[in-house]
Amino acid sequence: MSDIEERAISTIKLLSVDQVAKANSGHPGAPLGLATVAHAIWKQMRFNPKNPDWINRDRFVLSNGHAVALLYSLLHLFGYPLTIDDLKNFRQLGSKTPGHPEAETPGIEVTTGPLGQGISNAVGLAIAQKQFAARYNKPDFTLSDNYTYVILGDGCLQEGVASEACSLAGHLQLNNLIAFYDDNHITIDGNTNVSFTEDVNKRFEAYGWEVQWIKDGNNDLNAINKALEQAKKSNKPTLIRLTTIIGYGSLQQGSHSVHGSPLKADDIKQLKEKLGFNPEENFVVPQEVYDYYNKETIQPGQKLEEEWNALFKSYSEKYPEQAKEITRRLSGELPSGWEEKLPSYTKDDKALATRKLSEMLLDSIFDYIPELIGGSADLTGSNLTRSKEATDFQPDDAPAEGNYAGRYIRYGVREHGMGAIMNGISAFGANYKAYGGTFLNFVSYAAGAVRLSALSGHPVVWVATHDSIGLGEDGPTHQPIETLAHFRATPNLKVWRPADGNEVSAAYKVALGSKHTPSIIALSRQNLPQLEGSSVAKAEKGGYVVKEAADAQVILVATGSEVSLAIEGAEALAAKGVSARVVSLPDQHTFDQQSKEYRLSVLPDGIPIVSIEVLTTTGWAKYSHEQFGIDRFGASGKASDVYKFFEFTADGVADRALKTIEFYKGSKIVSPLNKAFYSVV
Amino acid sequence: MSDIEERAISTIKLLSVDQVAKANSGHPGAPLGLATVAHAIWKQMRFNPKNPDWINRDRFVLSNGHAVALLYSLLHLFGYPLTIDDLKNFRQLGSKTPGHPEAETPGIEVTTGPLGQGISNAVGLAIAQKQFAARYNKPDFTLSDNYTYVILGDGCLQEGVASEACSLAGHLQLNNLIAFYDDNHITIDGNTNVSFTEDVNKRFEAYGWEVQWIKDGNNDLNAINKALEQAKKSNKPTLIRLTTIIGYGSLQQGSHSVHGSPLKADDIKQLKEKLGFNPEENFVVPQEVYDYYNKETIQPGQKLEEEWNALFKSYSEKYPEQAKEITRRLSGELPSGWEEKLPSYTKDDKALATRKLSEMLLDSIFDYIPELIGGSADLTGSNLTRSKEATDFQPDDAPAEGNYAGRYIRYGVREHGMGAIMNGISAFGANYKAYGGTFLNFVSYAAGAVRLSALSGHPVVWVATHDSIGLGEDGPTHQPIETLAHFRATPNLKVWRPADGNEVSAAYKVALGSKHTPSIIALSRQNLPQLEGSSVAKAEKGGYVVKEAADAQVILVATGSEVSLAIEGAEALAAKGVSARVVSLPDQHTFDQQSKEYRLSVLPDGIPIVSIEVLTTTGWAKYSHEQFGIDRFGASGKASDVYKFFEFTADGVADRALKTIEFYKGSKIVSPLNKAFYSVV
Repeated sequence: MSDIEERAISTIKLLSVDQVAKANSGHPGAPLGLATVAHAIWKQMRFNPKNPDWINRDRFVLSNGHAVALLYSLLHLFGYPLTIDDLKNFRQLGSKTPGHPEAETPGIEVTTGPLGQGISNAVGLAIAQKQFAARYNKPDFTLSDNYTYVILGDGCLQEGVASEACSLAGHLQLNNLIAFYDDNHITIDGNTNVSFTEDVNKRFEAYGWEVQWIKDGNNDLNAINKALEQAKKSNKPTLIRLTTIIGYGSLQQGSHSVHGSPLKADDIKQLKEKLGFNPEENFVVPQEVYDYYNKETIQPGQKLEEEWNALFKSYSEKYPEQAKEITRRLSGELPSGWEEKLPSYTKDDKALATRKLSEMLLDSIFDYIPELIGGSADLTGSNLTRSKEATDFQPDDAPAEGNYAGRYIRYGVREHGMGAIMNGISAFGANYKAYGGTFLNFVSYAAGAVRLSALSGHPVVWVATHDSIGLGEDGPTHQPIETLAHFRATPNLKVWRPADGNEVSAAYKVALGSKHTPSIIALSRQNLPQLEGSSVAKAEKGGYVVKEAADAQVILVATGSEVSLAIEGAEALAAKGVSARVVSLPDQHTFDQQSKEYRLSVLPDGIPIVSIEVLTTTGWAKYSHEQFGIDRFGASGKASDVYKFFEFTADGVADRALKTIEFYKGSKIVSPLNKAFYSVV
Repeated sequence: MSDIEERAISTIKLLSVDQVAKANSGHPGAPLGLATVAHAIWKQMRFNPKNPDWINRDRFVLSNGHAVALLYSLLHLFGYPLTIDDLKNFRQLGSKTPGHPEAETPGIEVTTGPLGQGISNAVGLAIAQKQFAARYNKPDFTLSDNYTYVILGDGCLQEGVASEACSLAGHLQLNNLIAFYDDNHITIDGNTNVSFTEDVNKRFEAYGWEVQWIKDGNNDLNAINKALEQAKKSNKPTLIRLTTIIGYGSLQQGSHSVHGSPLKADDIKQLKEKLGFNPEENFVVPQEVYDYYNKETIQPGQKLEEEWNALFKSYSEKYPEQAKEITRRLSGELPSGWEEKLPSYTKDDKALATRKLSEMLLDSIFDYIPELIGGSADLTGSNLTRSKEATDFQPDDAPAEGNYAGRYIRYGVREHGMGAIMNGISAFGANYKAYGGTFLNFVSYAAGAVRLSALSGHPVVWVATHDSIGLGEDGPTHQPIETLAHFRATPNLKVWRPADGNEVSAAYKVALGSKHTPSIIALSRQNLPQLEGSSVAKAEKGGYVVKEAADAQVILVATGSEVSLAIEGAEALAAKGVSARVVSLPDQHTFDQQSKEYRLSVLPDGIPIVSIEVLTTTGWAKYSHEQFGIDRFGASGKASDVYKFFEFTADGVADRALKTIEFYKGSKIVSPLNKAFYSVV
């Protein structure tokens, strides 16, 4: 190791330690153990810190996100717009340096911290690169050939989501993925031998990865450099197991006490002395370290991007159509006119399951939107997620049909992995719109990833079929009850439950048009009629009056399969001389974004409102005075029998409506949209 | 294979096929492929169908629960109270034979269907057996030595939850666990080679399992029997890979079309003919098959239980204390007087984090309740879940300290696996009360298992610390927002958020006393004062008036850390001459079970109610007119700064209260507990 490299590594270590000490909060152990490998990876990475969005940059993912101080040190030293003052504000409210990596900070590819997500996102980043390269590279033009680098810890390897994603990465032969496993023998509970004694190397070989092992990860820079070279030659993803000592150099090194608590003052002092730094000074970067990274990495990176820009210019001349498509995608815009491909329906069209209508929609747009990349967690034939136009995404020599230009991913029965991979695909850029299918009930398996879609603003789409007791015989293990309430309560997440074909189109129109908001589209297994009062334009407001009634005495607000039922209920009421308006509210999140005037025109003061949905009533009080739902688990039986059992029939609806009218008779009725106060932030 | 065994296997196949055909719904493929191995496993299993609760019975788990028709056939043939008429009612509303295995049916150990859960439950069943045996067996008395058998498919192996649980099972050397992997190369998306090409044998070897492989799983009964014998001699858990042809004998055998759709009439006809049955008859069981299983399995099983009872009688004489404990546990009762061990507090006691109060409580009861078996997903030092009395549950020759009599499980960073394992421990019987710790935000990783705890009625307890923005610096990736709304919306699930020590005791009192309801106990990272108005007796009602006020103009209802804040808010209001009652509502589920009279005494008509909780407002309209919460993601910073940022201060509370009083002035105010109609089922 050259002197300057040693100096640079020491700077990374101490900047990280100083951040944690100043904040008196954070994780110094991993940065100390990982500074050497981080230096090695970043030094050779291809990126331009002046343009963090350059599409052919190498990606870096810190899957053990709690080591974020390390990442902030790197971003600062490698020229990203993160100042020493930002580092000093580590973990303070409103800073650019929050307690775990958040993707809005330039240079941070994905938000990590929740373990297992980062490595799984990285699989998505690698898939996207392969697909992008396969679609656009030409024999004489390599537009895309970046790598995705990952550092992950024991915790990530223990998480099931990572197992799912890594098994798939092996199958897909993603040799653009290079992961360093920080084998430091320590987790929060102490030595990993209390719970984690599996043979990790063998497990990853079993997945189809190439595995290397570096025994002195703290010092053997040469071995790390060689391992990187070898990994780049592999035809498989590579896991480089790096045996390290956590908190290397600290008096506490090798113990779990150094994992998540700041080093004590005397420990920092001895560490700085040992590394040849002035123990009285904090946040020190020797000028030669700045200069070194500038010369070794930053300037070459800028040059690489310039060369790429020149390459793309010649490409544009030779392949103007593809170049136009790339340029459009990089601008984040869908192909113009794509909305016109969305089907619309009238009441005379056939009754169909909304999952079937979703399939027809995908057939109609799949070829037109090349950034659409779909898949299913092994429920393709049930979710109906595979467009007729689709080719499977598979390596060239896979046992199954397909190629890397394919845009349909066979995720296997790996819902959580699928969710995290979709986030990674989205994070790649190039306007990728990832969608994935499973049963609505099993989106919950992926809750950890869905939450991060919403937090990071990845506009991925869950095609969540079999959305209620309407799935029938599979019974309560498969029938969602709490699922929509859970996801509706998640910030920045659209949760559509369309009632017919027009509403399916509206859901996809808004979902695919979203730049920073993910969507779940809950779809029925059973057939539903095309509604007379629906339209794409109305439904894309998230809520609207689907059946008006003069002098309505009650409003029935429903979603999905219950909208047509509510209309039947309104007809039953009409037969008794009672006038009822029916409102369809396919997505609360979108509805909430409409003007208050509009929302109050749909759900006004003065009329009592009943919500109707065959799921939990939780959450519906936001839009209704009374709630008709199912606050218990479902039942196995024919769908029609189960609906009857829960009294979801026209008469059951009418009965609740009449009780509601009676209950509110003589009261001043305020719309639930009118509140004493509103959220301030 | 003898003629009678062939006949028996054919009977299993055809009973299963007939169920699916009659229901015109279900999965015939797996039962046809698995009838031979199912016969082999069940024939040698030790159980007494007349007493499905016998504690030393062998357990069987069908992890690929969609093959449930197979299980119903077995239960019928092996003497459980499931009649041919029950089989004819397969998948009908109200039948004893729902679409997936549900644990209430006698002989079904755990509810399965959601993939990956069953094998993970089985790990829990095996852990419980090891612990039970280590505690109670004596050199001269083997009270517990049962096996847990599992059949699982490709889908289970792809699920992350299974990876987590199986890695831990290998670490724990659970040689009482024998799993058959139905290697049929088919999942719903077709051939497994589209997504699942890993080397499963090698993966399981890496986990520390013994792996065997039987190449002709449809016919090689001899090999299956030998494999079972070998597995029983292993010192590791065993995976027996069984290569089979799905739908074996059907015209569609080997294709995914036989997975989830009934066989056609002509296919059933040819199958029955091929197997020597009358194609005109359905649901046929030859008398010799009944006789055979009766003689080979049922009668020996009854005898085994009788012998066990005699053994336990002598054991009781020699080890009366242990026997008394066992008898008590088998009756499902906790040790008398255990509630008196729960700490109580007065306002002069020190302010402490509720996670710390939870630790003190566990210290106080852990030794007194031998069925308590705890753990953490690698956050022991943060969750504070390990009683000082605890020994780790570890195999004798493990690298880490502990033994099988230990009652503290180091789960590793495996939240979903932990949840599913806790369900299995609970399903073992003997009154096991499993609890497990993680951060509240990461209980969501285990949503699939939590849902099954609730659906199956496993009274497990999640010790969910770091329950809000109050965790501070770790930031939005770790701060729950939607989490409590999600779990409160789940049927049959208690979600406690205690405000102080008395409420922590109440939460545990109700949670551990529950026989069929799981609990999540959300605990603070930060210190909270002991409240003047709290008591265990009040809090165990789920909600109560913690601070009364004469002629209250507003009610502030809060949970956890916001109860003391609400009291401060009430004081700020009092200073302005406004009278406010404060209600603590630590568990909505428990509160809902109180009499309406009581609930209305807490939240009466006539006074406007504001809820105060630093989480989503979703769900709070059930108990309040106005909601003060956080309907966005959190922020990284010092906890006190973050609270201020979201205006959760005494003044912030008072401000919302005043606005609420103003808004409702002159209106008739109806308690949200009074509804126009109520749930009927």
